[in-house]
Amino acid sequence: MREVAIIGIGGTRFGKYLDRSLTDIAQEACIKAIRDAGIRPRDIELAYAGNLAQWEWGQGLLIGQLVLRELGITRIPVTRVENGCATASCAFREAWFRVAAGECEVALAFGVEQMNVAGSDKMLGIFTGPQYPERAGDMGFTAPGIFALMARRHMEEFGTTREQLAMVAVKNRRFGSMNPEAQLTRAVTLEEVLNDRMIVDPLTLPQCCPRGDGAAAVILASKAAAARFTTQPVWVAASIHVSGLYPNDASYTYFDTDVRGARKAYEMAGLGPEDLDLAEVHDCFSTAEIIHYEDLGFCAKGEGGRFVEEGRSDLGGQVPVNTSGGLLSKGHVIGATGISQIIELVRQLRGQAGPRQVEGARVGLQHNGGGFIHTDTACCIINILKR
Amino acid sequence: MREVAIIGIGGTRFGKYLDRSLTDIAQEACIKAIRDAGIRPRDIELAYAGNLAQWEWGQGLLIGQLVLRELGITRIPVTRVENGCATASCAFREAWFRVAAGECEVALAFGVEQMNVAGSDKMLGIFTGPQYPERAGDMGFTAPGIFALMARRHMEEFGTTREQLAMVAVKNRRFGSMNPEAQLTRAVTLEEVLNDRMIVDPLTLPQCCPRGDGAAAVILASKAAAARFTTQPVWVAASIHVSGLYPNDASYTYFDTDVRGARKAYEMAGLGPEDLDLAEVHDCFSTAEIIHYEDLGFCAKGEGGRFVEEGRSDLGGQVPVNTSGGLLSKGHVIGATGISQIIELVRQLRGQAGPRQVEGARVGLQHNGGGFIHTDTACCIINILKR
Repeated sequence: MREVAIIGIGGTRFGKYLDRSLTDIAQEACIKAIRDAGIRPRDIELAYAGNLAQWEWGQGLLIGQLVLRELGITRIPVTRVENGCATASCAFREAWFRVAAGECEVALAFGVEQMNVAGSDKMLGIFTGPQYPERAGDMGFTAPGIFALMARRHMEEFGTTREQLAMVAVKNRRFGSMNPEAQLTRAVTLEEVLNDRMIVDPLTLPQCCPRGDGAAAVILASKAAAARFTTQPVWVAASIHVSGLYPNDASYTYFDTDVRGARKAYEMAGLGPEDLDLAEVHDCFSTAEIIHYEDLGFCAKGEGGRFVEEGRSDLGGQVPVNTSGGLLSKGHVIGATGISQIIELVRQLRGQAGPRQVEGARVGLQHNGGGFIHTDTACCIINILKR
Repeated sequence: MREVAIIGIGGTRFGKYLDRSLTDIAQEACIKAIRDAGIRPRDIELAYAGNLAQWEWGQGLLIGQLVLRELGITRIPVTRVENGCATASCAFREAWFRVAAGECEVALAFGVEQMNVAGSDKMLGIFTGPQYPERAGDMGFTAPGIFALMARRHMEEFGTTREQLAMVAVKNRRFGSMNPEAQLTRAVTLEEVLNDRMIVDPLTLPQCCPRGDGAAAVILASKAAAARFTTQPVWVAASIHVSGLYPNDASYTYFDTDVRGARKAYEMAGLGPEDLDLAEVHDCFSTAEIIHYEDLGFCAKGEGGRFVEEGRSDLGGQVPVNTSGGLLSKGHVIGATGISQIIELVRQLRGQAGPRQVEGARVGLQHNGGGFIHTDTACCIINILKR
């Protein structure tokens, strides 16, 4: 497999775009990525598009071709992929593989989702499990429900506190206040988080990510092509994709997909968690980030609560986590989230992250999980990037 | 790139399955393919799933993981792809590429769609173009509309007759009557086709494919793995994927994606149309098959009507086309169609096609097109298989 670099990044701010089409939102991200890379549209030889659930509005099918047509790119192989909440990372990884395997020199991967549109109640409906009403709708096995259950179990088993859970939101919203592309840009205090509206005990509103509209795109290139276009390539040191079952073992305190995925990713990169300068992880709920610290090897099992409390995931700490603001600030724009995480890592590794810059960052890990509780299905994609 | 063989095939009959889940339908195909290949589920290292539009019913997301979980396969990379009407071929091609590039030895590709379910009116809605009502809904630029327009243009320009168009349906329905997996198994006469209900002039009902429910699966293997499991490998001599615009040039009598795709496929296989023993092409409407004859090089431009009239696409002719019965008999089960075409070629190349067997068949071409008229987007996947 050949070395592959990310040479261009572009994203929309995540938010509410009621007056824009899905295509238009995606184009903004792709155009920004193309400009950032300094390439021409015709340099792109292959593309993957990530989009979860937009067909209801007749917009999502063949979305890759639809977006690229507007950029004057009409003949190349284009494929849409879906992998639950890891959809964007999947588009990235497919494009990476094609460049790594030598099929092309320059590829585009983008992800897009528009969740604030008419009919979007149906999109949320899928997460409550129309197929398995006895588990999802009736038993409360919705996403907030299961992450609250995991939080309670973590509290019971490891002494994790409500305050520690809330600190994840405080940290990420503070980072979000430094990221103009975040959806929620107001920092929040610990008291605010603890006293906000309870969604599912112990998770209050700021500990649950919002949804949103938006897109994110990257340009990938072979080593030779990267040398032509950029002096700041960011290399893909590892890219791993595993599937699994949603956390349904007795403990409910870890994600098997994370643990296996991380092990493979570190092995592929020839690096360990001690080599990471920062990470973007899938903080759909505060519980998730604490568990990811442990599953990704940043700390031992059960220490996730203390990890955030001691500032080890903050700027200046052991591994600053979610300096973009994470899903808790940006929102989980399902089809775009994974590439949005990658964009933050690239900004940091280029030294372009402004007030939230991790000084001297050389290696970053991106983690994007996906799964549907009501169907016991999960996947996880982990990429390690380095400059 | 390494040589890749198809070592297992399995499909459901296409039809109406109101009492079965999407997962169940897909499992039937996957289990049949696994048994046909003589492998164990744990031999599968990677999988791609094709499904166009099932999320409305909460069933399609992460469909690959969902189906494989039931087969006891829970840890491998699994991805769902979508590429319009070429969705299944796309799943096939992605899996082929991974084996060819050396990422794994054995891979599964399957496609599934369930169009006869509550809410399926919405699925049909996407083809009438909610985004572009002025073109689709209002101007009649639906699929039957545009294929009728192309037929009229072909008649005007090349003297193609209503009878020749109808002969495509007569031939394919006769083949369908020999295929127990087809949805429509009653042969029809020329008079019946000509006098049936007019859908859009000149296309009568039997010249328009039905929709349906069903699934199709194949097992792909490297040369070394194929040698372990089968004595009848069918090799992938070429696999090509191109995108383009829907036929919107002035002539309206060819598909640019077909022409470019075929050229690349013949070049990759080192073969020409004269080497083909049979073909499965995307006969969503009778017009399409006549145009595909020309675009794929079976005959010169404008001769498609005579090609079918002279029996050159029939058993014993130059290139028997759609011996499976084609979409006109099987129905277009969007997420499964392409792999269903591949299954027919494999059966023929193994000599297992019964009364519709093409004697001594060694090389077959599969063509699957996709596109949405109302969004000017198209793609085309062509595979050439040989024994």
